[in-house]
Amino acid sequence: MKKGLLIVLTGNGKGKTTSALGMAFRAMGHGLKVCIIQFIKGSWKYGELESAKRFSDLLDFYVLGKGFTWQSENLEEDIKIAREAWDFAKETINSNKYEMVILDELTYLIKYKMVSEEEIVNFLLNRPENLTVVVTGRDASKLLIDSADLVTEMVSIKHPYDVGVKAQKGIEF
Amino acid sequence: MKKGLLIVLTGNGKGKTTSALGMAFRAMGHGLKVCIIQFIKGSWKYGELESAKRFSDLLDFYVLGKGFTWQSENLEEDIKIAREAWDFAKETINSNKYEMVILDELTYLIKYKMVSEEEIVNFLLNRPENLTVVVTGRDASKLLIDSADLVTEMVSIKHPYDVGVKAQKGIEF
Repeated sequence: MKKGLLIVLTGNGKGKTTSALGMAFRAMGHGLKVCIIQFIKGSWKYGELESAKRFSDLLDFYVLGKGFTWQSENLEEDIKIAREAWDFAKETINSNKYEMVILDELTYLIKYKMVSEEEIVNFLLNRPENLTVVVTGRDASKLLIDSADLVTEMVSIKHPYDVGVKAQKGIEF
Repeated sequence: MKKGLLIVLTGNGKGKTTSALGMAFRAMGHGLKVCIIQFIKGSWKYGELESAKRFSDLLDFYVLGKGFTWQSENLEEDIKIAREAWDFAKETINSNKYEMVILDELTYLIKYKMVSEEEIVNFLLNRPENLTVVVTGRDASKLLIDSADLVTEMVSIKHPYDVGVKAQKGIEF
């Protein structure tokens, strides 16, 4: 096992991206450099982006990919965008500029077969020795889970949307 | 249902406190004021505390309570400390100084019957209208879960300690 870990945060519950953000803040508290790559445009909210600005010396943040569902009518275009995003992630991982790289919502690329599971998992397993990679997203595939060092599943027990409540400003879920 | 939510993050997996921290950062990104009360001494690590310093204009952080297990040989003393910590939490909740109060590891007080479940849940249900309270900790009790607006269970699918790895600096779990 490498010194850096492969961490997967999955499940249908809230807290995957939020937990990854907390890991980033924790690592940056140690002065470690972190890169967050967001594979779904718009999944990060205003509050997170504003807080991230306070760490501009340690944090790089890239928004790639498409909107929420990745299900447009132009599959070829989607695959092209996904491939470009994944290529950028690979460069980032191999850049040796960071101690932690967060691939937020990467599981969608696998789920919708935009990039093959084997290619992604093999690349992540061959990442630099000291780099921790955090992958978030629903429906993490079996191969990804089997390959990870730490896997937490967020299970929604109760959600305010269930009872028809609109999320509050600053406390989105 | 109030405008502020009662959120419970529970389960045996990692990510409860980290997710609460992420919620705090998100809220502070909106300029909201947050208070974190830690009921288990030492559960927050250096990295989190250092990052929190960057938000000293919006974040208050209090360490109360005892060490990890809350199981000393002096039960009376434990109950006294727990009661004082809970009283402080109540004052904080009613102070109207914050939009979010995080009660980190509060569930231990209920689990070890330091403070009665009914008292804690009733108080939290009668919190100020706009205040969001986030409770973290394993083994959240049924009454607490039933009373909450949002509950996420973090389930450990795989943990590096399982395979004998020591946590990395900056990436503790």
